[in-house]
Formats: sequence, C-alpha cells, structure tokens
Amino acid sequence: MIISMKRGATQEQIDRVKELIEGFGYRVHESKGEERMVFGAVGDERGKERLTCLEAQPGVEKVIPILSPYKLASRETNPRSTVIDMGLGVSVGSTRLLVIAGPCAVESQEQIMTVASALKDSGAHMLRGGAFKPRTSPYAFQGLKDDGLVLLSQAREEYGIPVITEVMDIASIEIILEYADCLQVGARNIQNFQLLKQVGKTNKPVLLKRGMSTTIEEFLMSAEYVLSEGNSNVILCERGIRTFETATRNTLDISAVPVLKEKTHLPVIVDPSHGTGHARYVEPMAYAAIAAGADGLMIEVHPRPEEALSDGPQSLRPHEFRKVMEGIKRIAAAVDRTL
Amino acid sequence: MIISMKRGATQEQIDRVKELIEGFGYRVHESKGEERMVFGAVGDERGKERLTCLEAQPGVEKVIPILSPYKLASRETNPRSTVIDMGLGVSVGSTRLLVIAGPCAVESQEQIMTVASALKDSGAHMLRGGAFKPRTSPYAFQGLKDDGLVLLSQAREEYGIPVITEVMDIASIEIILEYADCLQVGARNIQNFQLLKQVGKTNKPVLLKRGMSTTIEEFLMSAEYVLSEGNSNVILCERGIRTFETATRNTLDISAVPVLKEKTHLPVIVDPSHGTGHARYVEPMAYAAIAAGADGLMIEVHPRPEEALSDGPQSLRPHEFRKVMEGIKRIAAAVDRTL
Amino acid sequence: MIISMKRGATQEQIDRVKELIEGFGYRVHESKGEERMVFGAVGDERGKERLTCLEAQPGVEKVIPILSPYKLASRETNPRSTVIDMGLGVSVGSTRLLVIAGPCAVESQEQIMTVASALKDSGAHMLRGGAFKPRTSPYAFQGLKDDGLVLLSQAREEYGIPVITEVMDIASIEIILEYADCLQVGARNIQNFQLLKQVGKTNKPVLLKRGMSTTIEEFLMSAEYVLSEGNSNVILCERGIRTFETATRNTLDISAVPVLKEKTHLPVIVDPSHGTGHARYVEPMAYAAIAAGADGLMIEVHPRPEEALSDGPQSLRPHEFRKVMEGIKRIAAAVDRTL
Amino acid sequence: MIISMKRGATQEQIDRVKELIEGFGYRVHESKGEERMVFGAVGDERGKERLTCLEAQPGVEKVIPILSPYKLASRETNPRSTVIDMGLGVSVGSTRLLVIAGPCAVESQEQIMTVASALKDSGAHMLRGGAFKPRTSPYAFQGLKDDGLVLLSQAREEYGIPVITEVMDIASIEIILEYADCLQVGARNIQNFQLLKQVGKTNKPVLLKRGMSTTIEEFLMSAEYVLSEGNSNVILCERGIRTFETATRNTLDISAVPVLKEKTHLPVIVDPSHGTGHARYVEPMAYAAIAAGADGLMIEVHPRPEEALSDGPQSLRPHEFRKVMEGIKRIAAAVDRTL
Repeated sequence: MIISMKRGATQEQIDRVKELIEGFGYRVHESKGEERMVFGAVGDERGKERLTCLEAQPGVEKVIPILSPYKLASRETNPRSTVIDMGLGVSVGSTRLLVIAGPCAVESQEQIMTVASALKDSGAHMLRGGAFKPRTSPYAFQGLKDDGLVLLSQAREEYGIPVITEVMDIASIEIILEYADCLQVGARNIQNFQLLKQVGKTNKPVLLKRGMSTTIEEFLMSAEYVLSEGNSNVILCERGIRTFETATRNTLDISAVPVLKEKTHLPVIVDPSHGTGHARYVEPMAYAAIAAGADGLMIEVHPRPEEALSDGPQSLRPHEFRKVMEGIKRIAAAVDRTL
Repeated sequence: MIISMKRGATQEQIDRVKELIEGFGYRVHESKGEERMVFGAVGDERGKERLTCLEAQPGVEKVIPILSPYKLASRETNPRSTVIDMGLGVSVGSTRLLVIAGPCAVESQEQIMTVASALKDSGAHMLRGGAFKPRTSPYAFQGLKDDGLVLLSQAREEYGIPVITEVMDIASIEIILEYADCLQVGARNIQNFQLLKQVGKTNKPVLLKRGMSTTIEEFLMSAEYVLSEGNSNVILCERGIRTFETATRNTLDISAVPVLKEKTHLPVIVDPSHGTGHARYVEPMAYAAIAAGADGLMIEVHPRPEEALSDGPQSLRPHEFRKVMEGIKRIAAAVDRTL
Repeated sequence: MIISMKRGATQEQIDRVKELIEGFGYRVHESKGEERMVFGAVGDERGKERLTCLEAQPGVEKVIPILSPYKLASRETNPRSTVIDMGLGVSVGSTRLLVIAGPCAVESQEQIMTVASALKDSGAHMLRGGAFKPRTSPYAFQGLKDDGLVLLSQAREEYGIPVITEVMDIASIEIILEYADCLQVGARNIQNFQLLKQVGKTNKPVLLKRGMSTTIEEFLMSAEYVLSEGNSNVILCERGIRTFETATRNTLDISAVPVLKEKTHLPVIVDPSHGTGHARYVEPMAYAAIAAGADGLMIEVHPRPEEALSDGPQSLRPHEFRKVMEGIKRIAAAVDRTL
Repeated sequence: MIISMKRGATQEQIDRVKELIEGFGYRVHESKGEERMVFGAVGDERGKERLTCLEAQPGVEKVIPILSPYKLASRETNPRSTVIDMGLGVSVGSTRLLVIAGPCAVESQEQIMTVASALKDSGAHMLRGGAFKPRTSPYAFQGLKDDGLVLLSQAREEYGIPVITEVMDIASIEIILEYADCLQVGARNIQNFQLLKQVGKTNKPVLLKRGMSTTIEEFLMSAEYVLSEGNSNVILCERGIRTFETATRNTLDISAVPVLKEKTHLPVIVDPSHGTGHARYVEPMAYAAIAAGADGLMIEVHPRPEEALSDGPQSLRPHEFRKVMEGIKRIAAAVDRTL
C-alpha cells in the first residue's frame, strides 16, 4: 500500500499515521516528494485491506493498493494454466476448446433430447440446461426443479455427455451434485459469498459467471472464495457487463479474456448468448471470443426459440448451431486450437 | 406489448406472428404504418414476458413492453403511501423521517454501546450493525456472527431502539429474526431470489438495498418477490450505483428517490455512506437525499474509523454525526418533514 | 508518480527504468517491498504525463499518479472560493445563489419575453436560451442563430437581466460576445480543446457543462484549458452523466457538487432539467442540488412545453417554475444561503 | 411513434393529445388496451422528434419511437455495402481488409519514416499519425501541427501509402485536405456537429471514431450529419466505450461490429490500441475484431513506445506489429477475407 499525505499535513498527523501503519503490523517506508509525504507500507499486501481505513485519519489524502488482493487465483503465484476435468472424457483449459450448449431452461424431455442430439452430432462437448431458474419476475417460469435434473441426467446417459446446471442456493447443492458434472454459479450470485464457500467445499468443477457490474478484480476475488475452501476446479465465464449501450442486452467484454488469461491460471470461457441477447449476434461474438483466446464457449440452443419459456430471443436453432460450430472450427485452427 | 414487424416482412410471417400472439392468450390489435406493420398484444402485460420470445420469429423487428412488470409494488394499483412499523415506536413512510445509524460491522461491546448512546442522544431512531458481513475478500473480517447479534440486542435493550442487521443466507434468517427488528438484504443479494422469497415469508420489515447495477425497474421486481410471498413491509434503500466515475466509491443516484416515490407506495431511504465511500461527502449527500424527498437515511457511525474492521473511510465519528443530525433537522423542516 | 515493477523484474530492467525516469528529469526514490521494487518519481507531477509511457517498458507493472494534473483550477493552490461577476449586478460563488432559467432554444419573441417576464418576477437572475443548437439529428431544429441572439438581447434590455447562450464553434464566438453576458460550452464540446482555448482568450465568464462521460478530473482539466489561456471566470455545471439507468435521461451526479467544491475554487451549479430529462423530477433535484452545496441552478422553462421545438419533456411551465423558486428559497435558508 | 396514455387519463386529455398529434402532421391510430389507451402516430418517423414533447402533456405516460432516426446511413434503405476508395489503390468495405497503422502523434522524420517502412513491408495499407493532437491536459504535447502534416506527406511519397490524420477544428480542414487522403474525426468530436457538417462538404473519405459514451444510434446520427451534406464516404471506427471496468483503458465493444454491420451499409473498422490502452491486449483484440466481421483495423505502432510523446503504453513496436499482421492474415482467411 502507498499512503499519500495531504500537502500541508502537520508533523503530528504524519507521526500518527506512521504509528498506525506500524500498529497494523507493517514496516513504514518514507518518501518525501516536492509537495507531500508519501509512505509505503511494506508487508504482505493481501489482507492489508484494513490499511484503507487510514483514509479516515486527518492529514491522509489517499491510500493506494499496489498488489492484487487474490493469491490462489493469481498466475503470478501459479504460472501454469489449469486444466479441469469435466467428466466423461471432457476437459477445459488445454489447447482443445470446450463448447457447452443447450437451452436456457429444461422444459420437457422432447426439448432436452432434441438439443442433446444436435450437440452430440455437431461436435459440442457438454450440455447446459437450467432446472432452478433465477428470474427477474416472481411471475415468470421458475424452472422444473428436481424434474429438470432428472431430464438432464437422462440426456447425459443417452448421449454420453457431461451436464452443467445452475445452483441458486445452498439447499439445492446436494441434489444437484447427484445429477450434474459441473455446478454453475450465476451472474446474480457472483457475490453471494455463502454460496461460493459452500460450492468450494464440493469436489465438482464450478463455473462462475461474471456479474453484470463485477470488475475483473472482484471476479477473481469470487474465484478466490471457492479456491480458498479447497476446490481448485474453477472455470470463469464472461457473459457481458452492463453499460449505457442498449443495442445489445449486455456489452460482451471480450477484452476480459486476454486480461483474465494474463492475471489467472484458471480457464476462461465466454457466453455470447447472454452477452448479446440476440441470436443473430451469437455467431460473430463466438468467433471473436475464440480469436481473443477463450478456452471455450457456452451457447444457448433451443428447438423452437419463439416458444421458449425463457431467453428465446438469444437462442440458436439446432441447424444454426451446427453452422456456428463449423465456423468455430476454422477460427480455432487459425489460433492453433482444436475443437 | 407492441410487436413491430420488419419493413418488408412477408404476409406469411405476419400471419404466423398473429397466430403466436393469440396462442399465448392475447388479443391482437393491428396497426399498419407507412413502412411497417405494428401489432399491439392486448391483455395483462405482467406475465407477458413470454411474448418477448417473438423476437426470435422471422420478420419481427422488436418487441416493446408498455406496462411495468410489477403489480404489488406499484403506486398505480396502490396509490396510498405505505407506513411501516419498525418496532419500539419507530416507523417509516410518514412525514416523520427515519434515521438509521451505526457501524458497518459490530466489532465489540464497547464499540456498539458507544455508538448506540450517541445515536440516542442525537435523535436518531434505529441502530444498524452487521453481524454477518459480505466481504469481497475471503481473507477479510467476516463478522462476529451470533455474538454480534447478541451485542446488538444488548444495545437494543439498553437504549430502547430497534435494530437492523443484514441477512446473507436462508440458514441465518431464523436466528436473526430472534434478535433484530428489521432484516436487511444487501446490495449483492438484491437478485438472490431464493433469499427474497424466504424473507417474504417472515413478518418482520425487510430493507432492500439496491444493487450496484440494478435498474429501478429490477429493484421494484425484487420488492415484488418479497411482497408476493405475503410480507408487505418492504423499505427500499438507494446506496449508489456503479458508473465510470471513481472520485466517489459509487455514484449515489439521488434521482432514484423521486422516481421511486412516483412509481411505488413503499418507503424510500438513502445510504450516503456506501453511496459516496468517503465520510466527508456524507453530510451534503444526506441533506440532498432529504431535500429530494427521501423518507429516511442510513448512516455509518464508528467511534474510531481509522481502526474500523470495515468501511472506515466512510464512517462518521459520533460528534460529526451529531452535527449532521442538526443539519438534517433544518432541511427536513424546509420540506415539511420532521425528524 | 509511483512506478511499480513486476515481481521478478531483472536488475537490468530495474536499472533501465531508473535511467529513463532520470532522463525525463525526475529524481528517483527507491522502495523495496517484500515482493517487488517500487519507485517514486520526485518532481512536479503535473506535466509528468510522459512517465505513463514507462508502462511500455519491460519489467514495469504499472504507473500510478499521486498528484492531480490541474494547477490553476485546484483549491489546493487557490484555497479561496472564486466569485464571478455575471453582469448587471448578478454574481455566482458567494453565499447568494444564482438561478439561471429559460427555454432550451429561443423560438420566438413572444416565447422568450413570456419566459423572461416570469423569471424576473419569480426572483431568478439570469436568462438562458440557445440560438445555435447542437442536435443529435441533422433533421431537427438547429436554432434561430443570429436572430435568436437578437431576441435574447431584447429580453436582456427589457427586463435588465444578463443572458447566457451556447457557443458551438470558434466562428460564432465573436457575434455571441456582442450579445451575451456569459458563454456556455455544452456537454458535447467539453473536450473540444480548440474551442476551450478560444473562449479562454475572451474576457467574458464561461460556463462549462460536464460531458456525459467526463470524469471529474477530466472536467477540471477542461476548466484548466480555459484558465491557462488567461480567462479566470469559469463556472462548472453538473448536468447528468450516462449510466445504465434509463428511468431518467441521464443520472444527475449530485455528489459531484461536494467533490468539486473540495477540489476546486470555481463556482459549481447544477442543471436538473437535462440531468433528469423529465419536468416532474426537476423540483426535487433542484432542492437536492442546493442542499448538497451547489452555488446555483440552471432550469429549463417554456410557456408551452408540449409544443417546444426541443427538450419539451424536461421544461417547466412558468407557474411551475414559480413554485419551485419558493421551495428553493426555503432550502437555501436551511443551508445558510440566500437567493 | 407510440404514445401511451396513463391509466385513468381523462377523455379531455385523450382528445387533446390526438389533436396535438394531428397538429404535428401525423395520422392517429387508436388502440384501446385493457388498462390504457395507446396511440400510434402514423407518418414518417424520422423528423418526428417533436412528438417526444408530448410527454409534457397531462395524461401522457410515455412516447416510444419505432423507427430508427437515420435514413442515409441505414442499410434498410441502402442494402448494399459501401466500398470506399482511400487513394493510392487502397479501399475499405470489400472482402479485402484495411489495416491502418502508425504512431499516435507524428514526432519526427526518423520516427514516421521508421514506422512507414515497417508498415509497408508487413503488408499494412495506410499510415496514421496525429499532427493536431487533442490532449486532456493543456500542458501535454499538442502535436507538430503543419510540420507534422509535411512529414506525413513525405512518408506518403516515399512509401506510396495513403495517410490519415485527425481534424480537430474547422479552421484546419483546408490544410489537412492538402496533405491527407482521409480525415479522421476523433472520439471527443463525434458530436461536434459543426465540424461534422464541414467535413461533410469535402470530397475526401471521413473516418468517424465512436465517442466514449456514444450509443450506436447516436454514432449513426453523427454519420448522418456527414452524409446529409453530400459526402457519402464515411468509415465508422469502434474504439472502446467508457464503463466501470478499469483493467482496460476503455471497454472495446466488439459487439458493435455485428450491430453496425446489420444497421448500416458503411464500412466498420476497430481500433484495439485505444480500445484497450495496453499494447499486450492489442493482438487478441485485433483478432477478435476481424473474427467478428470488422472491415479493418487501426493500430498504433511506435519505434520506442517508452519514449513516445503520447499513448506509449498502447503502442506496438514494429517487430511486434509484424507478428500481429501474420496472425491477422490467418484469422482473415478463417472468415473468408483477405488482407
């Protein structure tokens, strides 16, 4: 941490701040500039959060952190990229890409089987489908719940593909663990720290979706919650942030891919369906994500989007999805990745 | 809903869209513009969410909602302002303002008693203090938990003031109900719909803090979750939204006050401490909130902010808080409110 | 500036960075942390912008500025608040508030005279009205141009009130100086640096409107452009920033008022009409601005908003404006200001 | 336009609104919903801006536009993609991509010649370099001005490549036209409508950079200003928008590429240098842009970024640029484009 004093801070104020820094267990490094005194607080910066309270002390102008506040998620401490086993021979984080696809919500056996079949023969690797659905409106379809899990696992058996589904609260972790290969924590729960701790206590892979207003640093701190409980199988998913632009449902932050790949060793995938909110932009944004270095994609596919119980406007039809998979293969090859 | 067709949509596309609208149970009203066909879907707009899936249908340009999606929270259906009893003779929503104050986190008996005493003699009405703390970092202080609740209730007894504390997960609702007069749902949990449903099943007042990127409409939908479970005692709290500006920790959206007061009958209060992140801006922003029509304030007060375990930079010292209370009284009088 | 090296930076990289810092004319202050080397570059920070290029140097992690980059606008160097004479006995920046009111655009003699008369008898001080209008669409009304200036000056004569109007380009500065008491630079031109330099060469007061995505620091740098050309009569106007929220046209950043009052000696006013975009929110936000410490207001008033050629939805009718003026007086008294 | 009345609007209010719509020259189409009256105003929507003033009328809830407000820029009216001749055999908008590269600012003959040479032999097509520089600080380097133009044109002659440079004000248009093949309007001037009109009167291609908080619709309206003056050679450049995220200088909105390609026939290129602000993210984001369907790129290249007079941290060294060009070729091939 750097603690910058105000111009004209008194000697008494300066002495008190030094005393406080030392009281918190840090060594003080003084630096006298032309106009003001600047202190460095030397010691492990992570956990130094308390030093920010010095801003409340008279004479202090601001407190500036130098190090990033995460450890386990950091590539600085773990330079080697993590490869995560998703089950049934599927993995993410190597040069081979992971494509997860499926409907927003599991709606019926016919629906989930149709989609699973299309995925399988187009070369996608993993099936998604919500059984418990977080919906903005209490009056909207809230998911098939346990019945949805059963349908997912039937598709898993039938087509031999691992499945991922969202966990919305601690109470349903246990049953979801029985049926799913990977737990998804949704964007709205990315700072639900109790939930993060609990999924951190399981031994299944956890996919974290970036929140609508989550900074990259906060996103990595959420990963740190899971990692610090002992579960090292965390996948990060960029899915669009909230900005002033309304032409797309969210603004898909593709630059988060290279930033995350630089800062963390964890795999990074992209969801162009939620990221744009419109099926017609999914294809170009899927290509962009792979070109930018993403380790995979999560794409919404529905047999009849116009009748979907949720997220219809952003879902591809199976034949559209097949076409996108062809394009992904070409982009992957251009950046030395395989599908 | 208004469904606008693309210029050049075919008759077949137009017919299919009409058919789908009717299939969802709505009456179709056609309107032929100079360049394109526009449909109105007549029927109750709330619950019409499924109509948005029509955007996936060939020939459709966009689907535009007309009505707001909330019912119980709406002033249109409930014109009279709701007054909520917070316990021990304190209420919110009338011409009398509510001032809630206290530390970010309960840290010790000495701390909470010092603050409670200062509140009481400065004319504030209710004590806040976190026992379970949502922290961005897993390595930061996570609250005294049950011990914090006990300390809060000791202050409650000693000074005869109701207390409010944050509920972070479903599991701790029960114990918090034993000790607190009002449950707070934090900004990070504002779309934790399972939690909202559960607090909706209690009979204590619930204070909802707007999320960092929650629109006013989404905020009211979160209130609707609580209301639709039968708990009609919901207080809304504006606490700053995330924008590009970094001079303040968040951007306190004071205009949310008149917008919310127009759209809902629920009480609206403002938290200038989280909203600005700096103690020196709390006073002017508290005044601004009251001048704009807020029904109350939530302000952080700590005996020694420079040693606080969280949120020190935004906490007032007790003597500073007393001064702010004097100013609030004057502003309140200028807008025909009392303290 | 603080220059933080990467963990594991080589001695050669460290030496080269020191060399470069000294080459730019700064003294180097070394600080060895537990994990990395941190340099302070000692010397005048303003003008140090070039040091940011060190981020391009191998081994450098980041470059962090300590001082603010503005001098003339800074309250640190000029602690005393500036009071600006607006002409005809009107000023801004003292305990007396300034209220500027008028239509978005000058449309006709009848319109501008009706408004001027209403202002005069409600106690407002200055008349606004656009003659040259920046419009998003090339097909929208672009202002009466020179004829508008003439109408403004007729109102000025008739009612003895100073007038302010927007200057959109360098070519029209001269003619506007003939007719107006104060030049307004609009939000869309706040980083039109050529225009800022030119108005800095005049001797009339200049009102700068914050841009939709202008940070407070950038806003002060735009003021610095005007001040550095010799014109010290700069008034800052907060008028809303662009965020994700769409319930209001912009998000009026009331906290910018105390932040600006702390960082600069220049007067700060607020425009709640553009800030909210809806006439019904102007009253509460005008009160909030004054309560937060603003030195004045700019409010749109139009005799028939439903027929206005621009900005009708946010304009008050004269009788509504009179009512707001009564309320402003009460709030002003509550914060020891007068109208 | 759709005009939605409030629930409970009186017959008198309804009649008055109909009267006003007709008075503005539109035909009224009534639609009675279950709860409220909705009007359609039939007639050419562009130019209908005045109808928004109806929001000021008692009983009106909101006014919702249906059509986009631009004509000449719209792909709806001009389905065929525009190809623009940039001079010296270079063009943009066909399947062949355009790569513009060069330093932020022209600094010296040695600098610009070194860069031009590197561009030429790496297969880039056009040289950029600022002679007039918009800088946030009045104390920063403001460009070599006319001397910079001369240096640019020397590089043009020497290497046979067209050049582009920024025009900051109307006064310098004439001299820039003498030396440059394409005029660039910078992000800060994207709503400087006077400047847009003037460049619209020239016959050289105009490259418009999206502003930091410009919506896609506003961006197209700025293009409309140029087009409506008779200059049909407009290129749009996405260069990052301002969001809450600070890991990158701006958030490069790659999804703007498919959105713009859908809505307009004009060529769309991307600037990953300004878009990210860090040289190390330029390569992946350049690839993402091409994968998403951009017609070209603008990339900053400088022989010694650590000594650049502006934008050093985001500039590639010539050998890094060569490597990026190799990668671009591969991505281009994967989406059936050539370099």
